[in-house]
Amino acid sequence: MPELDAALQYARKNRDRALDQLTAFLRIPSISMLPEHQSDILLGAEWVASRLQGMGVGDVEIMPTAGHPVVYGQWLGAGPGAPTILVYGHYDVQPVDPLELWKSPPFEPDRRGENLYARGASDMKGQLIAFLHAFESMLQTVKPIVNLKFLIEGEEETGSPSLEAFLAKNRDRFACDACLNIDGSILGENDPMVTYGVRGLAYFEIRVRAAAHDLHSGLFGGSVENPAIAMARAIAGMRDAEGRVTLPGFYDPVRPLADDERQELSRMPHGDRWWLEQTGAPALFGEPGFNVNERVLARPTLDINGFLSGFTGVGSKTVLPAEAMAKVSMRLVPDQTPEQVRRCLRAYLETAMPATVTWELIELAHSLPGIAERSSPAVQTALLAMEQVYGKRPVLGRTGGTIPIVAMIQNILKTDSVLVGFGLPDDNLHAPNEKIHLPTFQRGTEVFIRFLGTYGQ
Amino acid sequence: MPELDAALQYARKNRDRALDQLTAFLRIPSISMLPEHQSDILLGAEWVASRLQGMGVGDVEIMPTAGHPVVYGQWLGAGPGAPTILVYGHYDVQPVDPLELWKSPPFEPDRRGENLYARGASDMKGQLIAFLHAFESMLQTVKPIVNLKFLIEGEEETGSPSLEAFLAKNRDRFACDACLNIDGSILGENDPMVTYGVRGLAYFEIRVRAAAHDLHSGLFGGSVENPAIAMARAIAGMRDAEGRVTLPGFYDPVRPLADDERQELSRMPHGDRWWLEQTGAPALFGEPGFNVNERVLARPTLDINGFLSGFTGVGSKTVLPAEAMAKVSMRLVPDQTPEQVRRCLRAYLETAMPATVTWELIELAHSLPGIAERSSPAVQTALLAMEQVYGKRPVLGRTGGTIPIVAMIQNILKTDSVLVGFGLPDDNLHAPNEKIHLPTFQRGTEVFIRFLGTYGQ
Repeated sequence: MPELDAALQYARKNRDRALDQLTAFLRIPSISMLPEHQSDILLGAEWVASRLQGMGVGDVEIMPTAGHPVVYGQWLGAGPGAPTILVYGHYDVQPVDPLELWKSPPFEPDRRGENLYARGASDMKGQLIAFLHAFESMLQTVKPIVNLKFLIEGEEETGSPSLEAFLAKNRDRFACDACLNIDGSILGENDPMVTYGVRGLAYFEIRVRAAAHDLHSGLFGGSVENPAIAMARAIAGMRDAEGRVTLPGFYDPVRPLADDERQELSRMPHGDRWWLEQTGAPALFGEPGFNVNERVLARPTLDINGFLSGFTGVGSKTVLPAEAMAKVSMRLVPDQTPEQVRRCLRAYLETAMPATVTWELIELAHSLPGIAERSSPAVQTALLAMEQVYGKRPVLGRTGGTIPIVAMIQNILKTDSVLVGFGLPDDNLHAPNEKIHLPTFQRGTEVFIRFLGTYGQ
Repeated sequence: MPELDAALQYARKNRDRALDQLTAFLRIPSISMLPEHQSDILLGAEWVASRLQGMGVGDVEIMPTAGHPVVYGQWLGAGPGAPTILVYGHYDVQPVDPLELWKSPPFEPDRRGENLYARGASDMKGQLIAFLHAFESMLQTVKPIVNLKFLIEGEEETGSPSLEAFLAKNRDRFACDACLNIDGSILGENDPMVTYGVRGLAYFEIRVRAAAHDLHSGLFGGSVENPAIAMARAIAGMRDAEGRVTLPGFYDPVRPLADDERQELSRMPHGDRWWLEQTGAPALFGEPGFNVNERVLARPTLDINGFLSGFTGVGSKTVLPAEAMAKVSMRLVPDQTPEQVRRCLRAYLETAMPATVTWELIELAHSLPGIAERSSPAVQTALLAMEQVYGKRPVLGRTGGTIPIVAMIQNILKTDSVLVGFGLPDDNLHAPNEKIHLPTFQRGTEVFIRFLGTYGQ
């Protein structure tokens, strides 16, 4: 497509300006999980709205939801006969703790070598800016051949709790032919991937109480249950020593991995060594019968995300704690549902928890797993655009992460999503020292330009 | 002993002055565990030294140790033929977290009804002031018939790590005929007890690491071990569902409970209902074959004192934590030793921890269990003094708590200890809203007066 060269040139020439915009965007600590950042969330939404307006996107609006607002906008310049693509992204970010492990402050973007470090750099303010830069490069040179609608939300990092009701209410406004979800990743700097499936999530908090208040472990040790031990015993029964989830019924609805899917996943360039390097683990670990790529991308898992009981400071406080709290979450694959695994977990806890404690199970977040049609124009255009930029056929893969919007859009708008994002596995998503790789940012911009210029061709 | 009436009168008349002194003492946040309270520890030592000097105790000295200092003093007014009693106490206190559960600030003593609330009110600034008030009441009226030496330390709440070396070095200065340890408790407002045995302690921290840094539970869940689950599985194997410690070899050196000791312990007035009320637990729990009093006072236990991993704030951060930390401690009875149970724990962890994690075991505190001769003059005098004040024969019992000095004094000074203290089981030791019961404070003063006036008679 030589006519796209002008857009690609424009993008390269104006790269520094795009990075300046990214830096300004990253300075906003739009942490959706923490109530004290409510005003930063609104700042984040306003920043996106203002950027869209400045580019010439129409009908830009900060739309309220039951939670944090959605930024909407549309560009219908490709004409009524052209397909309409819904661009999905989010302007919120994860919390930053443990803060002491950051080498530079999380909201003061710091460029070191080929990377720009900040919370949200990769997940996903960087990817949003890459797309907007691509779109602007097109608008200034060659017209996109698709119409665009924007849905940029502020609750992705808390599981998008308000979005389902919001989408159902605004079904018509968001009608589209396909969704381009830019909250995705590739496998490595030179290993592109188009993603057609995401894992679901069911996230719970379990609270166990064994006494009315903390007790002295000498004066009361031997009289009542220890809630941390009761919790530990319950958790120990959720998985076997090899990594199989042992909640009864957990695997029942899991769709078996088809041979052709296992074949496609086998094209993943990363073997055990790569996973060991990425994690720094002494050994890999997981469900027997599946390799590590299959386990992470296409099999369900159960993890403890947090555990707190008693005294955790420096020293030896001799307390018999009154309570223990654990956060336990499961990644789901088709055709599991959060409801189904919640039933499994509750039934298990009812038998596993001793009568010497009281306990409660609280659901904190849930999202269906999602799968798109591999043959759709969006998936096929994305594959080709990536191949042109990277010079190799991308893997058609799945992600182990959860993007609730993928399932919601399938359910409510009746539209498949293709995930085209450029996060790298070592970008430290959700962890200290999150960063974006700047050459990948540039390639991402070029993939988006080609997507906008060649859709369905 | 009618000649003691003058001292008892004096004590009653000057009770408010003693409580004013207690209030001033309680305002000093002498938390030995937290380095930021180092200067408060020194203030606490100076306060005690100054009080002893003000009463006419001689040779008062703040003696350095490898850790926090010991306050020493002696009163030899009973003459060279009289026995010398070593009075043991401590001026340090436990940390105050969770601070939000305190109804009044922990270092602003607050009198509500018959109780005075503050950290250290019962453990053991209140008991120290009760003794000093008794001693002063004697000095002002009838002369004590025993000489006294004071050993008031500042590291009891961290397991007295420096005291053993300090005592060995100052063996001669602390030579005595018996130790009166006033860091003890009784069974209830009207249930006196003299204590001749204490449990030992072995306190550890276990750290488990499964990855070099926190990971995204979606992008990496299924690839590596979860350290909180590995820790939970290890903890689950330390005790069985009924409460028996299952570390191999743990019970081997435990001295069987003699029939006459079980008989004496059966005089404990508190049954299951009392323990349920004190703890607020839904049910009692512990080692089969022993009743709750035996389990707490004379059997070893294992507890988790703290557990921390991953994200523990509000919400649903989807992190696969890199590490987990647990504090695990054991209460020991004769003839267990901290070394023996450390070997059991380490050997267990070596088989229990999977190769998918790295781990370390750190010893934070240790203390031998201790038992005194039941027929000694100190024990017998204490029994009689209590009987006279309470109008009933006290239980001759043991405590589930740990007082390292009891074992050290037996080992180094070759002297038995008798524990005569007045903490109540609902005093919230080591927990929020610690308090001292003021009528019990008064009775404690009177018991100490009788002890000082009738020793060995």
